[in-house]
Amino acid sequence: MSIPALDRPAMEAAAARQARLTKPAGSLGRLEELSIRLAGMTGQLDPPLGEAVIFTLAADHGVALEGVSAYPREVTAQMVLNFLRGGAAINVLAREVGARVVVADLGVDADLPDDPGLRQLKVRRGTSSITKGPAMSLAEASQAIEVGRQLVREQPLDVVLTGDMGIGNTTASAAVICALTDLDPSMVVGRGTGVDDAGLRRKVAAVTAALEVNGEAISRGPLETLAAVGGLEIAGLVGVILEGTSRRKPVIIDGFISGAAALVAAAMDQGVTGYLIASHRSQELGHGAVLERLALRPLLDLDLRLGEGTGAALALPLVRASARLLNDMATFDEAGVSERA
Amino acid sequence: MSIPALDRPAMEAAAARQARLTKPAGSLGRLEELSIRLAGMTGQLDPPLGEAVIFTLAADHGVALEGVSAYPREVTAQMVLNFLRGGAAINVLAREVGARVVVADLGVDADLPDDPGLRQLKVRRGTSSITKGPAMSLAEASQAIEVGRQLVREQPLDVVLTGDMGIGNTTASAAVICALTDLDPSMVVGRGTGVDDAGLRRKVAAVTAALEVNGEAISRGPLETLAAVGGLEIAGLVGVILEGTSRRKPVIIDGFISGAAALVAAAMDQGVTGYLIASHRSQELGHGAVLERLALRPLLDLDLRLGEGTGAALALPLVRASARLLNDMATFDEAGVSERA
Repeated sequence: MSIPALDRPAMEAAAARQARLTKPAGSLGRLEELSIRLAGMTGQLDPPLGEAVIFTLAADHGVALEGVSAYPREVTAQMVLNFLRGGAAINVLAREVGARVVVADLGVDADLPDDPGLRQLKVRRGTSSITKGPAMSLAEASQAIEVGRQLVREQPLDVVLTGDMGIGNTTASAAVICALTDLDPSMVVGRGTGVDDAGLRRKVAAVTAALEVNGEAISRGPLETLAAVGGLEIAGLVGVILEGTSRRKPVIIDGFISGAAALVAAAMDQGVTGYLIASHRSQELGHGAVLERLALRPLLDLDLRLGEGTGAALALPLVRASARLLNDMATFDEAGVSERA
Repeated sequence: MSIPALDRPAMEAAAARQARLTKPAGSLGRLEELSIRLAGMTGQLDPPLGEAVIFTLAADHGVALEGVSAYPREVTAQMVLNFLRGGAAINVLAREVGARVVVADLGVDADLPDDPGLRQLKVRRGTSSITKGPAMSLAEASQAIEVGRQLVREQPLDVVLTGDMGIGNTTASAAVICALTDLDPSMVVGRGTGVDDAGLRRKVAAVTAALEVNGEAISRGPLETLAAVGGLEIAGLVGVILEGTSRRKPVIIDGFISGAAALVAAAMDQGVTGYLIASHRSQELGHGAVLERLALRPLLDLDLRLGEGTGAALALPLVRASARLLNDMATFDEAGVSERA
């Protein structure tokens, strides 16, 4: 596995063109940087960005039975059905921004119906509780990563967006983030779907226990960490990110859970970070640390904490706009506009 | 003139619906607030937002001849021609987000060609220098406001976006902002299109002089302040904002220049602020103070400082998305999803 380097000549050409467009240099701020990064990722000044696919991966978590979520565990399966009927936030946003949602079951602990909109790729029915031992075996983690890669390979796409559904997955993600950053759980664990103070204390205790119980596995590396304290949808997203970036596609990462997956992918191959676009800063406590570790600045900061890929979908219009500005604006010469004195 | 109050029952209905949608309460963050505000503005949970019109008003400034801009004054007219040919950033973004640009000449100091895309409504050919006396007469300021109102009245529209073009207009806007906020010019004047340190010192000196020379007029009220230290496109935008809000249309305000116009409009009628949506936080130094005074939180923070309405256009997809989420998501009941324990 290896992620190609960014195309430096394409980035230089994009930067040179930005300087000739009819606007004060730098006045489009972060959209200028973004257009240059897109050129580096794709090797094209005007990369196609029309086929946008949101990978919303679902799985259950053993730890969800330990009072770490405001919602009962069956909501994971219920929300998958909601995705299939088009009633969830990610469906609404996908329609609004022009993207497709690929819903995949990596490990929901329920029998889901056959549906043309659902990729049934269960690795196992939910993880084991990370407070008692490893969430899954190394083989299962590898299989879930491969499922994620496969999902990307089978889709025609120009840009990848990540999303998730899994009651309990902010707890697993927090454990992964703590393991990979050495941050204390109190700095990372947030309220997820909205637990109260007692629930938050249970979450911190669960993450602390998970890190202790699985300490030896965590010390061995990112795949081992993912298997020990992660989740099946998180592992699937690691695969989505690795496959998307290895194909030189821009990958727009959603919030906290996607951020945990991105940290794992980056620990496996540092080259992925060049292809990642951070869509937003989540309300979830430890998300800022994830973005800092990945050296990414989010495009949006709207106090979102929903997941599903909603933040990524909301950022897609900005990504497309940055490319259109670079390519469709007139230059000073073309427009006969005077340059600065 | 009077701006209608927000529709509180519509806002309560929107908030109640937000609480029933299949997501953790509050997890869509500022988009939830925005959907509730839109209901208050329009009196409808699902207001039409398809017809979006960006009013990009252009005018010249006497002070531009005093070394306060990085670009020569003729760029105002050249950029208007660029707008008409569709080569400017605002044209590209309008096409990308599905909005129309109305380009109007409120006071460009050049003869512009007849063009179906240009509303020729020159009040006068540029302002007088604000460092020497008033920019324009009270009658001219009132006329420019009326032109802005007329532009809104003649357009079929659901949502108003503000934009501007005028070399020197960050200097005039800074003077307006200082006059209305009592902030010191050193806290408000920024680099505009990108002046160097010497240019920045000249801008601060120009604003300081303008406030002193026009002190008596400024003390009389917002219209007098606008006439004394404002600009013709700024006055036109005051009219756009007053007319849009009086018609209960959401008004998405762009950056620093639009912010100065919004401050004037709010000083004339405090009721306008309920209808304003701050699109972005500009790089321009004093913009934060404007937003604070208007009690608005910007949707985007992308280091933009281009004007034309570009920030407003970039925020439009978020505004539309917020309404779609409120109206198109399934409720817990509809989707058969369990609510929190």
